[in-house]
Amino acid sequence: MNNWELQDEPATLDDILISCRATLKYAIKTAHPRYFNQLSTGLDMVGLAADWLTSTANTNMFTYEVAPVFVLLEYVTLKKMREIIGWPDGRGDGIFSPGGAISNMYAMLLARFKMFPEVKEKGMSSVPRLVAFTSEHSHFSIKKGAAALGIGTESVICIKADESGKLVPADLERRILEAKQKGFVPFFVSATAGTTVYGAFDPLIAISDICKKYNIWMHVDGAWGGSLLMSRRHRWKLDGVERANSVTWNPHKMMSVPLQCSALLVREEGLMQNCNQMHACYLFQQDKHYDLSYDTGDKALQCGRHVDIFKLWLMWRAKVGKTLRVHIFAFVSPGSLFLSSLVACVFLQPQHTNVCFWYLPPGIRYMEDKEERKKHLHKVAPVIKARMMEYGTTMVSYQPQGDKVNFFRMVISNPAATFEDIDFLIEEIERLGQDL
Amino acid sequence: MNNWELQDEPATLDDILISCRATLKYAIKTAHPRYFNQLSTGLDMVGLAADWLTSTANTNMFTYEVAPVFVLLEYVTLKKMREIIGWPDGRGDGIFSPGGAISNMYAMLLARFKMFPEVKEKGMSSVPRLVAFTSEHSHFSIKKGAAALGIGTESVICIKADESGKLVPADLERRILEAKQKGFVPFFVSATAGTTVYGAFDPLIAISDICKKYNIWMHVDGAWGGSLLMSRRHRWKLDGVERANSVTWNPHKMMSVPLQCSALLVREEGLMQNCNQMHACYLFQQDKHYDLSYDTGDKALQCGRHVDIFKLWLMWRAKVGKTLRVHIFAFVSPGSLFLSSLVACVFLQPQHTNVCFWYLPPGIRYMEDKEERKKHLHKVAPVIKARMMEYGTTMVSYQPQGDKVNFFRMVISNPAATFEDIDFLIEEIERLGQDL
Repeated sequence: MNNWELQDEPATLDDILISCRATLKYAIKTAHPRYFNQLSTGLDMVGLAADWLTSTANTNMFTYEVAPVFVLLEYVTLKKMREIIGWPDGRGDGIFSPGGAISNMYAMLLARFKMFPEVKEKGMSSVPRLVAFTSEHSHFSIKKGAAALGIGTESVICIKADESGKLVPADLERRILEAKQKGFVPFFVSATAGTTVYGAFDPLIAISDICKKYNIWMHVDGAWGGSLLMSRRHRWKLDGVERANSVTWNPHKMMSVPLQCSALLVREEGLMQNCNQMHACYLFQQDKHYDLSYDTGDKALQCGRHVDIFKLWLMWRAKVGKTLRVHIFAFVSPGSLFLSSLVACVFLQPQHTNVCFWYLPPGIRYMEDKEERKKHLHKVAPVIKARMMEYGTTMVSYQPQGDKVNFFRMVISNPAATFEDIDFLIEEIERLGQDL
Repeated sequence: MNNWELQDEPATLDDILISCRATLKYAIKTAHPRYFNQLSTGLDMVGLAADWLTSTANTNMFTYEVAPVFVLLEYVTLKKMREIIGWPDGRGDGIFSPGGAISNMYAMLLARFKMFPEVKEKGMSSVPRLVAFTSEHSHFSIKKGAAALGIGTESVICIKADESGKLVPADLERRILEAKQKGFVPFFVSATAGTTVYGAFDPLIAISDICKKYNIWMHVDGAWGGSLLMSRRHRWKLDGVERANSVTWNPHKMMSVPLQCSALLVREEGLMQNCNQMHACYLFQQDKHYDLSYDTGDKALQCGRHVDIFKLWLMWRAKVGKTLRVHIFAFVSPGSLFLSSLVACVFLQPQHTNVCFWYLPPGIRYMEDKEERKKHLHKVAPVIKARMMEYGTTMVSYQPQGDKVNFFRMVISNPAATFEDIDFLIEEIERLGQDL
């Protein structure tokens, strides 16, 4: 580490270049086609060029005055995304935020404000006990948001998911009624389009019927799966998304836009502004000489806001619709490859590009004691992963889920990944784990 | 706008390059030495190179596993920043967040959790009415944070500032006692080191005495002024900062690091993790093969987190301490230049690089009716600014504050700005406003 410490004397240019080289050398190669570890992978050349231009422009999204082009591009792109969701004429609102977790938190904040606008001034003590609902497979940011917003994690009620990871609507309705009987106020349902681990799509139409019946804000967390809206062949998985009040959609995942690029789309216009604005008079002067609706800064909790739009806009112009659709088509459901594999046990028909599987080392395959087998299997993935990191040949994540012990989750979102790369992953796992 | 719309067919490479050129052409030149409009200006070549490298690495700060180098650099840099604040051995905690507003909100979240840890699970309904205190000149993000966290803007009590914009400690104590008498629980004081408009520094020692007496979390919002801690000559302005529980410090402002780069530093170790962690088992597996304390993701509300550290770290290595100290020395207090100007009325001795002044057009200088004069003066700055934007020669912001009508606020944070550039601003304002 000594080499990385901050000294009091300036380093020479040579030292600086050595630092840069070392940083890239020891970095994880997230763009490598054999990197299957996260939902964000790959490195798109148009996106990279756009990110470099963005750095060079070095400005801030809070006012039209200092980022006129980027603000307009955000406007154009958000409108297009809302059209794709299916809201009439692309009407509505939205913003790019620093990641899906913040987008989800914004949605919860809006839902609360919509139902109880007084909470902005008076706080949570002015409102009855609010409860939110989301599937047990949903992203942890829903609970995190609830903790931050002063709602509390205990007020996030986890709804049962079926074997494939989809929320069970009947359980949702049951838990809503239960909450109402206790005198709580259901205000927010977060459905997931593309869960993090299984890649499952909650049944949005059934969920929207329930939300409508009980007058609850419906949010769709499509951070991972939202990009399927771009695909004619796969968008049916999000049928009903147009009934949502808000949608999170992260182009930095499936659409390969460089990190970070996350959008929150909102059906009702003006709500974001009313919810978050503080009218700072040094920034949002009312006597400016242009249309103030382009000053988007007061819609967000952030003051300064990084320019995340240009990467997406330029890539869209360069590739979407055609090329991206082709990519997505090629990504989805390579799980069939695994199904025929002898060594990997895929316990779930893939619904997205997520493939969840156990590797069964020879010593475990015919073990009869089920508990013993499970205990053993739980330790297999972490050991293989540790060895994989030592060799540096490929990278995939693992985790337990419910009663399932540690399994691998492979995801593909890198257009550079080929069938050979997927084969390599299997072979490498087998090589690293056959003695276990 | 037609040219900027998103088409369904991919654009050619030529079209893409034309878009890039146009984007740069119509962008505001924030790096120009005559851009005095925001607190973040300039374009540092080392910082830019580092940002380009960061884009190329395209990874995520949430786990050591996918960003080993960047996580270590963040560790090293945060420790150095805590040493500079004056915490023993640089102990404590911290994180880089998407801007000062979010850093301030994190501080408020931690203060609440420290006093009432049950709020994480049970929400605000489990705690008494909390109140926060900050000066009337503080940044609007304090109120925004309170609105989001379910505390409510009415529970942020604005403390009087003196003529120079510094918080009045006696008023703080009075309002704390008043709140306690009403049965409210004071939990958070945000002092400002470098206010947005005046560049004022609150008296941190006096404030910390009060916070200690009443057992209240003391936060220092040094988003703008924090960088003076790097300057032997100016750091006295933040005397007492070492007594704070948390400090916001944005290197993307005075230290010219490309946007975005904001740090929250926290004195107590472990608190951030306890406050925000949700133990997502797909990301923060407990059976990993390395020291899990390097997985910093669960300290934040974000899941994915953009790499903001490398720009700062590389610039620090290349320049700090020596060069940056020299820059800061050169920046501060060019206000004396204005004081001798005939046309600009500087109504406040500059405390930082902020210079606040009215331009007095000839027609107004000898106006006798004070109310009439004020009314007239209020309209001067917006007109000049609008004309300035038409000509595109220079850029400065304006705003009213309290009983002061619209005035210009010039800030310098660009090392490229020279005395000639400042002279130009004055002359340009005079040229554009002499008929008013």
